[in-house]
Amino acid sequence: MTNAIVLGGSRGIGKAISDALKSIEINVFAASKNDIDTSSMKSIKKFLENQNQTDILILNTGGPVPKQFLDITEEDWKLYHNQLFLGFCTILQNLKINDGGYIFLISSNVIKEPNPKLIISSAYRAAFSEVFKILSKDYAQKNISCINIAPGPINTDRTKELIKNIKKYEKDLPMKRLGDPEEIGNFVKAIIQNKIKYLSGVTINFDGANSNFIF
Amino acid sequence: MTNAIVLGGSRGIGKAISDALKSIEINVFAASKNDIDTSSMKSIKKFLENQNQTDILILNTGGPVPKQFLDITEEDWKLYHNQLFLGFCTILQNLKINDGGYIFLISSNVIKEPNPKLIISSAYRAAFSEVFKILSKDYAQKNISCINIAPGPINTDRTKELIKNIKKYEKDLPMKRLGDPEEIGNFVKAIIQNKIKYLSGVTINFDGANSNFIF
Amino acid sequence: MTNAIVLGGSRGIGKAISDALKSIEINVFAASKNDIDTSSMKSIKKFLENQNQTDILILNTGGPVPKQFLDITEEDWKLYHNQLFLGFCTILQNLKINDGGYIFLISSNVIKEPNPKLIISSAYRAAFSEVFKILSKDYAQKNISCINIAPGPINTDRTKELIKNIKKYEKDLPMKRLGDPEEIGNFVKAIIQNKIKYLSGVTINFDGANSNFIF
Amino acid sequence: MTNAIVLGGSRGIGKAISDALKSIEINVFAASKNDIDTSSMKSIKKFLENQNQTDILILNTGGPVPKQFLDITEEDWKLYHNQLFLGFCTILQNLKINDGGYIFLISSNVIKEPNPKLIISSAYRAAFSEVFKILSKDYAQKNISCINIAPGPINTDRTKELIKNIKKYEKDLPMKRLGDPEEIGNFVKAIIQNKIKYLSGVTINFDGANSNFIF
Repeated sequence: MTNAIVLGGSRGIGKAISDALKSIEINVFAASKNDIDTSSMKSIKKFLENQNQTDILILNTGGPVPKQFLDITEEDWKLYHNQLFLGFCTILQNLKINDGGYIFLISSNVIKEPNPKLIISSAYRAAFSEVFKILSKDYAQKNISCINIAPGPINTDRTKELIKNIKKYEKDLPMKRLGDPEEIGNFVKAIIQNKIKYLSGVTINFDGANSNFIF
Repeated sequence: MTNAIVLGGSRGIGKAISDALKSIEINVFAASKNDIDTSSMKSIKKFLENQNQTDILILNTGGPVPKQFLDITEEDWKLYHNQLFLGFCTILQNLKINDGGYIFLISSNVIKEPNPKLIISSAYRAAFSEVFKILSKDYAQKNISCINIAPGPINTDRTKELIKNIKKYEKDLPMKRLGDPEEIGNFVKAIIQNKIKYLSGVTINFDGANSNFIF
Repeated sequence: MTNAIVLGGSRGIGKAISDALKSIEINVFAASKNDIDTSSMKSIKKFLENQNQTDILILNTGGPVPKQFLDITEEDWKLYHNQLFLGFCTILQNLKINDGGYIFLISSNVIKEPNPKLIISSAYRAAFSEVFKILSKDYAQKNISCINIAPGPINTDRTKELIKNIKKYEKDLPMKRLGDPEEIGNFVKAIIQNKIKYLSGVTINFDGANSNFIF
Repeated sequence: MTNAIVLGGSRGIGKAISDALKSIEINVFAASKNDIDTSSMKSIKKFLENQNQTDILILNTGGPVPKQFLDITEEDWKLYHNQLFLGFCTILQNLKINDGGYIFLISSNVIKEPNPKLIISSAYRAAFSEVFKILSKDYAQKNISCINIAPGPINTDRTKELIKNIKKYEKDLPMKRLGDPEEIGNFVKAIIQNKIKYLSGVTINFDGANSNFIF
């Protein structure tokens, strides 16, 4: 049976991916913050004691509270360095992905269009995207596909925290709506279900035609 | 019933997309060069007399014979300007895409990593990618998704023409193989089948982890 | 003596570059539209009869009148295909750049962030940027540096035509002002004057911190 | 009098920038590792006790020893997180750049084309590039220009450590040579000397036409 670990799998995009994978008979471990706190190296190491391999891994975690640059403390940087970067590196150093598997990174559109309110997230998610890109070439040799999904405004609790007037915000979006987490869930599911392997080493903006840069 | 027009639909990636869409009961017009010669404005206009709307459009066409820059003639530029750029613009100006539809552009990885042997293709495919990006925002208002797939080395007749020793070439690829046209066919099918709409205005490298740039 | 040809050298950014190069004793041919009309292949060929080599070449030309996609005619496309793409290709195919020389392309920030009002410009300037990138590697072997400058909002007649209320527009810019053509003129001058050669094959956004994409 | 602080100013690219700025009568503090060790938060804070403002700041530091991903320890990540990211953030949070000033970041071409041997550098230099991009918009309001120079292979001790057979390596470069540190030094000098301010929020590859991606 195919096994999947979905980090941040109890809510938002992570939950949508978990649900979509369950629908095609994949054995999903939808890890909640109780199972693994990606901001704590201790928690990550404990998680890795019990998990040493999987077929599918979804690297997904929430972002920090918005803060202006001058207000960010050394503790903030270090906490989110763990959560958005070092934790994921440690997982990839210690968790075996079985041959023919998949790793999806759920990053954010801020990696390509950095956001002043989300400066911590822009920085560390970009950093990990660099690592993920490099590793995609090694994983390719084992037929493991690495796909970086960079969501734009998706209808999650997180987005509702960040944006006050959602209705007004939606009017300015090209599609006049936030994306549905299920669209990302189904996208991940569809790639796995159709055994699409050659899509790898790529960052896919998932933002309803909202970005402005060409590539 | 859902209708699709697949340009260059009789071979290679176009055929794979046609076949995949047919498998989910879409009414596919797999246009061959006899139906529409995208290098001829006359042929394009004639085609548009008989086709004035569709739900799904696949913009796909072959590339030029490799030529060094100094050997490219004014006639070459103009021919491929028609084939790779002006024809597609004319089609989008005259063919109605029904609300909720999809447009897929099959471009090439040379748009992001231009290739000296494929200079004409690099230039005009990039030019049309700019147009396509701009239009994605208008189409978004009608819930039409625009997806630019930029394939790397795929196992088609075209690739076999361009690369002499395929076996040797494959050894240097991260996945040790060319991509299958069916992987792209199934990718397109899966997006449509799963009604994924928020993926739009995006260029997706489809190259088996072969590219080196970060985004 | 060092010679330079500056296309579109009689006004705007072209004039500023001409003036800056003259100030360091370079023999500048500031070509006006009377000398060469880059929208006319006939005019370009005539120009090339009289010019067969230079040390420094500035590829620079005005852009088209803004037009919505559906209003662009086949004649529009072809005219600006000449002006923004084919003319420059023809020049590079026929004009010898002396060893150790420089080629500057003055493109536009729309190549990276395409603009719906400037769709023709976005497309063809991007197309030529691809050609220029490819050629930079060949030119490098003769110690010729190729630099693509992509200006943002610069204080030229062109910008005043495109933007109605300049004062209001400037308030939304990060630097609260348009760029000065002289800043680009001096930039080009400084690179040549300081014999900086290793800067090549690069696109340099020149936009007063106005762009939003990371690279 | 104009003051400049050049981090890593005693060797390589930093020294070349220091020397170039001194040649135009700028009062340069070429900080060596004895003055500030950017891998030590303690050293950085001590440095900031004595330095609280400058007109020109050059953010420049060496990179880590090459290591394969699986060999990188938590201590390695944290050390270089300080050196390549957190130290620079702390400096920008505490050091006032005077109105009309300049900040140059000397990053690396690995931020756009990540390198498996330089995975730590690729990650954290990209992360800081995101922060620097965001801040460029704030600094613009005080007429402070932020320029990210991403050098390719430059003739420094560092490059000689990384590449065994330099002569052979140079033959494969488009310009058949490494770049000179002085070219970067003179580039920085020329921008300041010519009061070019509108060049800001930009990443400039400085690599002798060596990169392959279009933008």
